[in-house]
Amino acid sequence: MDAGFYVPVRIIGGENCVKKGTQHFAPFGQLALIVCGKSAARNGALDDVKSALAANGQHGIVYDGIPQNPTVACVVEGARLAREHRVNFVVAIGGGSPMDAAKAIAMLACQDAPEGLFAHKIGAAVLPMIHIPTTAGTGSEVTPYAIITNDELQTKQSISSPALFPHVAFLDGKYMASLPQDVTVNTAIDAISHAVEGMLSVRAGGMSDLFARQALALLMGEYESLLAGSYTPAGRQNLLYGSTLAGMVIANTGTTPVHGMGYSLTYFHGVPHGRANGLLLANFLKECEKIWPGSTRKVFDALGMDVQEFAAKLKALLGRRKKLPEEELRSFAARAAKNKNVRNCRVPFTEENLYTVLKRSVG
Amino acid sequence: MDAGFYVPVRIIGGENCVKKGTQHFAPFGQLALIVCGKSAARNGALDDVKSALAANGQHGIVYDGIPQNPTVACVVEGARLAREHRVNFVVAIGGGSPMDAAKAIAMLACQDAPEGLFAHKIGAAVLPMIHIPTTAGTGSEVTPYAIITNDELQTKQSISSPALFPHVAFLDGKYMASLPQDVTVNTAIDAISHAVEGMLSVRAGGMSDLFARQALALLMGEYESLLAGSYTPAGRQNLLYGSTLAGMVIANTGTTPVHGMGYSLTYFHGVPHGRANGLLLANFLKECEKIWPGSTRKVFDALGMDVQEFAAKLKALLGRRKKLPEEELRSFAARAAKNKNVRNCRVPFTEENLYTVLKRSVG
Repeated sequence: MDAGFYVPVRIIGGENCVKKGTQHFAPFGQLALIVCGKSAARNGALDDVKSALAANGQHGIVYDGIPQNPTVACVVEGARLAREHRVNFVVAIGGGSPMDAAKAIAMLACQDAPEGLFAHKIGAAVLPMIHIPTTAGTGSEVTPYAIITNDELQTKQSISSPALFPHVAFLDGKYMASLPQDVTVNTAIDAISHAVEGMLSVRAGGMSDLFARQALALLMGEYESLLAGSYTPAGRQNLLYGSTLAGMVIANTGTTPVHGMGYSLTYFHGVPHGRANGLLLANFLKECEKIWPGSTRKVFDALGMDVQEFAAKLKALLGRRKKLPEEELRSFAARAAKNKNVRNCRVPFTEENLYTVLKRSVG
Repeated sequence: MDAGFYVPVRIIGGENCVKKGTQHFAPFGQLALIVCGKSAARNGALDDVKSALAANGQHGIVYDGIPQNPTVACVVEGARLAREHRVNFVVAIGGGSPMDAAKAIAMLACQDAPEGLFAHKIGAAVLPMIHIPTTAGTGSEVTPYAIITNDELQTKQSISSPALFPHVAFLDGKYMASLPQDVTVNTAIDAISHAVEGMLSVRAGGMSDLFARQALALLMGEYESLLAGSYTPAGRQNLLYGSTLAGMVIANTGTTPVHGMGYSLTYFHGVPHGRANGLLLANFLKECEKIWPGSTRKVFDALGMDVQEFAAKLKALLGRRKKLPEEELRSFAARAAKNKNVRNCRVPFTEENLYTVLKRSVG
């Protein structure tokens, strides 16, 4: 219970907070690179950002070339744009992909990484960033991580540095008003997984557990809405605050083998990131309990239910799952065993334990 | 619901966290000024800090001349010491008085304030600070405020700047193990007041309300211990986390007329700060409800009780209260009406409303 807690991000929350909070854009200079996916123009966030910049006499260049699961190529291109136009700061709009890509872009705009993105020792020089999540799941707006696809290693990989914390995060659930049901559910499950995994991290502590419990209360408090696919504006905001709080947890604790295994499902089968975690989460907890009886008690105390009920609730949200062949399960377990997330879990997982979780979840 | 949330403090929590977290002292340089009251040597915190510094080959000079309700003179003297010895950073150990004084010292060590401490426009140059609370109430370890006694205006007054956030806060309830019962109760009530007042601030928002609710759950969860004067180590840690969370609330919302009125009780009658707030809190809430029906509902939802029950619970903790003469009530109401805390409350208080609260509380 001696873990640290550090989130130096200015969080601005509530309806129309971008429009009401234009002063928070002002300190960062004349020209922004706006990093987003294609949906930012549709959910209203891009217009709000443009208005906010205009109100300050600032300008923005839009780079909307971020695919789901961003690649090294797309962040290198973004950094090239940032340098070419000598932008002063970065505004990220979107889910985890644009928000994570924006971090790598803000870094590569100031630092060469001749040894490659993933081997690069990140220095302090990073363009200031403003993050505006338009999904409620990743928590990237309050973490020092960026998850980028590493095609060389055939997995998603995290780059991490305190320099990658955004300066400002705007949390407005209205951008999620027309978010598709599958994205809403998958991202909410991602956030639930962050809170749960954070509680089982070797770096979990009194403060991070407090945030995790609060995150779970907010996220699971919207369970019936998630199941029905029907959301009030307050419910959307709760999911968003829950996901940000869960992000504040993993910013301090990191994640566990759930994420390590999930990356393979995403890389090789295109399973959305949150769904991949959700498919594995309940069996991961069962395996934790088998390896170390009592290790998951605080998780279920926080959830206010037992593992059977939690598994059933996740199953109801996730629907049908595809089954994978035996050799793939073995190969994914071997990959996950090499991931540093495994050592970050307070319950010691062997490759065999990882295989068991994969087998029961997607075998 | 569009308030910001910003607490750029690295929080380290848990038993023996100072000893286990010596690496967090290392980045700040060779020589520390250790600012504390006389009790720091008794509760073990001073020894832990000295060990931590020694482990890094760092040194500390102890300045233990901080009285309760620190004066301008004591912070000027602390700053003189800091300059004379060219210290690199400040370590504050204690309750609100040493922690607040340390902030003013860290600032005056780098900035001259020829126009006087309270008129000084605080610049960014401030010595880095590490704060170690040894009471659970003030929340100073996570706020950008320092409350210093202004003898010219005969009141306590706040100086405030983002530059006054400590870099690191260590939260270890063990330093409170032998804290006297009256100090424990008064400081806990201060923290409760912070959470409640934060919810009624014009700057209250979705995130700050979340933290306030969590703070109240932790603090009121220890109510029976507070009443009995008997604490488990976990209970002490809960009170400390609750007080830090409540500090994170007021760091973002500021306080309300409760603090504005309380300062007079402290300045003129030596009523401990937390007790002063506690004496006024229930009648403040009743007056809020009279001025603006429904305005306090979210507070009592968070507390899970009504105003009568809350008033009775506070009364049981506070015991006998001294009654003040009519002319003093009038004069304190007039003073409080000039305090900026009044404008910071979402319920508009006139001088007459303030008088009513004082009259019912200490009249």
